[in-house]
Amino acid sequence: MKKVLSLAIAAALVAPAAAMADATLFGKAHFIIENVDDGDTEVWGVDSIHSRVGVKGSEDLGGGLKALYHFEFKVHQDDGADGFGNRNQFIGLAGGFGTALLGRHDTPMKMSQGKFDQFGDLPNGDLANVIPGDDRVDNVIAYVSPAMGGLTFIGALVSGERADLKLDGHADHISLAGLYNNGPIFVSLSYNSYDLGDVYIEPSLLRLTGVWNGGMWQAGVMYASMDLDIEGADNPDFLGLSGHVKVGGAGKIKAQYLMGDSTNGGVNALVAGFTPNVNVGMPVSDPENDVTQFSVGYEHALSKRTITHVGFTSYEEDETEVESDAFFAGLIHNF
Amino acid sequence: MKKVLSLAIAAALVAPAAAMADATLFGKAHFIIENVDDGDTEVWGVDSIHSRVGVKGSEDLGGGLKALYHFEFKVHQDDGADGFGNRNQFIGLAGGFGTALLGRHDTPMKMSQGKFDQFGDLPNGDLANVIPGDDRVDNVIAYVSPAMGGLTFIGALVSGERADLKLDGHADHISLAGLYNNGPIFVSLSYNSYDLGDVYIEPSLLRLTGVWNGGMWQAGVMYASMDLDIEGADNPDFLGLSGHVKVGGAGKIKAQYLMGDSTNGGVNALVAGFTPNVNVGMPVSDPENDVTQFSVGYEHALSKRTITHVGFTSYEEDETEVESDAFFAGLIHNF
Amino acid sequence: MKKVLSLAIAAALVAPAAAMADATLFGKAHFIIENVDDGDTEVWGVDSIHSRVGVKGSEDLGGGLKALYHFEFKVHQDDGADGFGNRNQFIGLAGGFGTALLGRHDTPMKMSQGKFDQFGDLPNGDLANVIPGDDRVDNVIAYVSPAMGGLTFIGALVSGERADLKLDGHADHISLAGLYNNGPIFVSLSYNSYDLGDVYIEPSLLRLTGVWNGGMWQAGVMYASMDLDIEGADNPDFLGLSGHVKVGGAGKIKAQYLMGDSTNGGVNALVAGFTPNVNVGMPVSDPENDVTQFSVGYEHALSKRTITHVGFTSYEEDETEVESDAFFAGLIHNF
Repeated sequence: MKKVLSLAIAAALVAPAAAMADATLFGKAHFIIENVDDGDTEVWGVDSIHSRVGVKGSEDLGGGLKALYHFEFKVHQDDGADGFGNRNQFIGLAGGFGTALLGRHDTPMKMSQGKFDQFGDLPNGDLANVIPGDDRVDNVIAYVSPAMGGLTFIGALVSGERADLKLDGHADHISLAGLYNNGPIFVSLSYNSYDLGDVYIEPSLLRLTGVWNGGMWQAGVMYASMDLDIEGADNPDFLGLSGHVKVGGAGKIKAQYLMGDSTNGGVNALVAGFTPNVNVGMPVSDPENDVTQFSVGYEHALSKRTITHVGFTSYEEDETEVESDAFFAGLIHNF
Repeated sequence: MKKVLSLAIAAALVAPAAAMADATLFGKAHFIIENVDDGDTEVWGVDSIHSRVGVKGSEDLGGGLKALYHFEFKVHQDDGADGFGNRNQFIGLAGGFGTALLGRHDTPMKMSQGKFDQFGDLPNGDLANVIPGDDRVDNVIAYVSPAMGGLTFIGALVSGERADLKLDGHADHISLAGLYNNGPIFVSLSYNSYDLGDVYIEPSLLRLTGVWNGGMWQAGVMYASMDLDIEGADNPDFLGLSGHVKVGGAGKIKAQYLMGDSTNGGVNALVAGFTPNVNVGMPVSDPENDVTQFSVGYEHALSKRTITHVGFTSYEEDETEVESDAFFAGLIHNF
Repeated sequence: MKKVLSLAIAAALVAPAAAMADATLFGKAHFIIENVDDGDTEVWGVDSIHSRVGVKGSEDLGGGLKALYHFEFKVHQDDGADGFGNRNQFIGLAGGFGTALLGRHDTPMKMSQGKFDQFGDLPNGDLANVIPGDDRVDNVIAYVSPAMGGLTFIGALVSGERADLKLDGHADHISLAGLYNNGPIFVSLSYNSYDLGDVYIEPSLLRLTGVWNGGMWQAGVMYASMDLDIEGADNPDFLGLSGHVKVGGAGKIKAQYLMGDSTNGGVNALVAGFTPNVNVGMPVSDPENDVTQFSVGYEHALSKRTITHVGFTSYEEDETEVESDAFFAGLIHNF
């Protein structure tokens, strides 16, 4: 009987899954209740905050070498959307030389933020609302060095795969980061360069992050500066301060202040320009329009994996007078 | 080696999945062969009937408190569609106070149907073809009470999240249900109210369900009545009868009769109006157009998890003369 | 507490997942770095090659009968796409009689290729670029016989489910295959017939495959011939040769040569015609336009589940002068 079945199934499945393995199912459920007031309207909402599900695993290949894979998917949970979106998805080899990856991944610049962002993922609160460089890109060849005296180097080459836009190389987008991690100190320097193909400019972005963790408290600073590679252009720059203090055994009071020149979607257009769906336009920056985002919050750990939080974020653009005040309360469970 | 790898991966994954857990993979495979005759054409088909895959789990937080999550996805299997659709997807906390959930969920009215529907999920046969109130909605805050003397209360508040339609509150749609479960008797009363924002009416739906399970047989009745909140409108109402008799050790003969006023999509438009994709139109009801759906079937359990079934459903609208006769045979496996 | 929770959850979940089971998570990660030159442009890329994730399982029903299910999904990983695409997704019963399946599945003709294709899945290299018949279809009723003296029979009936195109039967598309597997010898003969509904022709395809595996080497041949069922039409035919030689303990040198008449998408239109999204056009064949595809490669197994490979494929159409040369290097991990 077994033989009959296994022949049928073996025939049915083109890919022979030789020896089944230790695939790990993992994810994160994060939902909030939110009230957002933009001056004109005030709207209540219940939102999924990058809830995700993934499968990952690794295999010991002997001789200090490991194969690893990671497929992670955003759950499209909200407002009628369904199915899955993308997160990091890659295959890799790891050994004494470090780790090499192929696929879709956070850029080294994004990876270099360490634990700076106190309000990450939150639509009102995330670092990326003000400071550019937090990107996940397709077509990545990435390398992560082993830690050498606390120092780690990460590099990624990204193919544009758009011959029509003259983005046909294996390094149309380059992202590099150096991370130094020693006890309470974390410092990183990262650099992105964007080949814009037939637009014939090559903007770049530099970001410096420092985080000091004193156990009961943490303080962080981030500075970023963009070189638009346009004669006479005002190059935008960005500053962020963040911190938290632990209270009681399980509580944490958090605050974060971010400011910078408005990029009006221009920087995002640049970074996202390496997917075929996007219009690689000229970057736009309006140095007259200053953006600030200020957040305070409190989180309480119900366990190592389950966290509740409340918070408030105020966002303002001074020239366009865009503003929004958001209150939120949420529940997070990592699995 | 391990340290090198873990640093690389820890850096690569922004979300630290602190302690990996007991995620449970679950689902249902249900396929049928069907012949549908609508009077003009007769078509054979092989269809997936809401086949689904999900991941869920819970964590004991101590002190009688539990965190729980549930992400369930419909498999878009048929007719060229691919990927996943949505089903219940939420995070929650459970304790002596009951269970509180945030996310996307069946309404309390849907949950209040108990085991009434003998042909659930089947495109030709499901209760929802005739009687409104079987909805799954986004942006839900739900509460399920503990069972008190057989009595359970369930309530849900739904945000519209559409400031443009004046659906900006935390309770634009309300669904409430009381369930009484005692030995062979199940009775439920449920109520939905729909704030239609800038349409300025507030329709409501009341549903009463009773199911008597005598072990070898079951009989059920459902009555629903809609108040359209429109001056002089004919308010639609709906009636259902269902039952089954067990035969042999593993067989079950089933029958179901449903009738009601045609809602011509109007009621669905109301309920679905709380997603951004939908045109919140005025509800339409044509009391001249009576709808009836009659089904008979037989199912045979091959195990607790695996069931085969055959059946026939006849659907008719008397004024529009829409009709369809469907024969189907299927195989179900729960995992 | 447990009782409270389980009542809440039981109410919340309409489908009672009676006894949880042995669902197996499986998949394949396959990424390549590629350089493709079509004579005009040369483009670098990093691509996911049908990377996939799935869940499957079976249940012993007693009396030699088994229930089985299989849901497999392509990971839409590349070039801005996200979520999942389809692969084989079905429910089935297996016993002494063989295996019967309902759902979406590779056709028996596709299943009959055995291990002929040395460059399967690769966008530049796959058999399907030249020889038709490698299809996965919806709405399938399939049967796989038990192996009888090395002989296995596979048959599939496919519903068109398009009354508007007069594709309303349960066997609008038929695919049949006989496989003979005995020690080093694998031979298969397969046959597809396509009812084109209101187009009123019924083309068919015949495919013959032989593979001889001598342990250290393998040689294969495939021949296919299409009968367009059009008076006076030049019927296209196709020939393939493939082979590999093992080198060292873990290496394999591979080569493959495919040739045939250009089908200019016409044959695909035929086969895909049984999904509602497709324009069931007349098949087109240009016997003046000969297509050839030649590939060489080397693969090295790092383990049973992890393989690296490099290769080169040259594709040419002699009349239209379409050509492309592709170099690729990849990493595969099965889990």
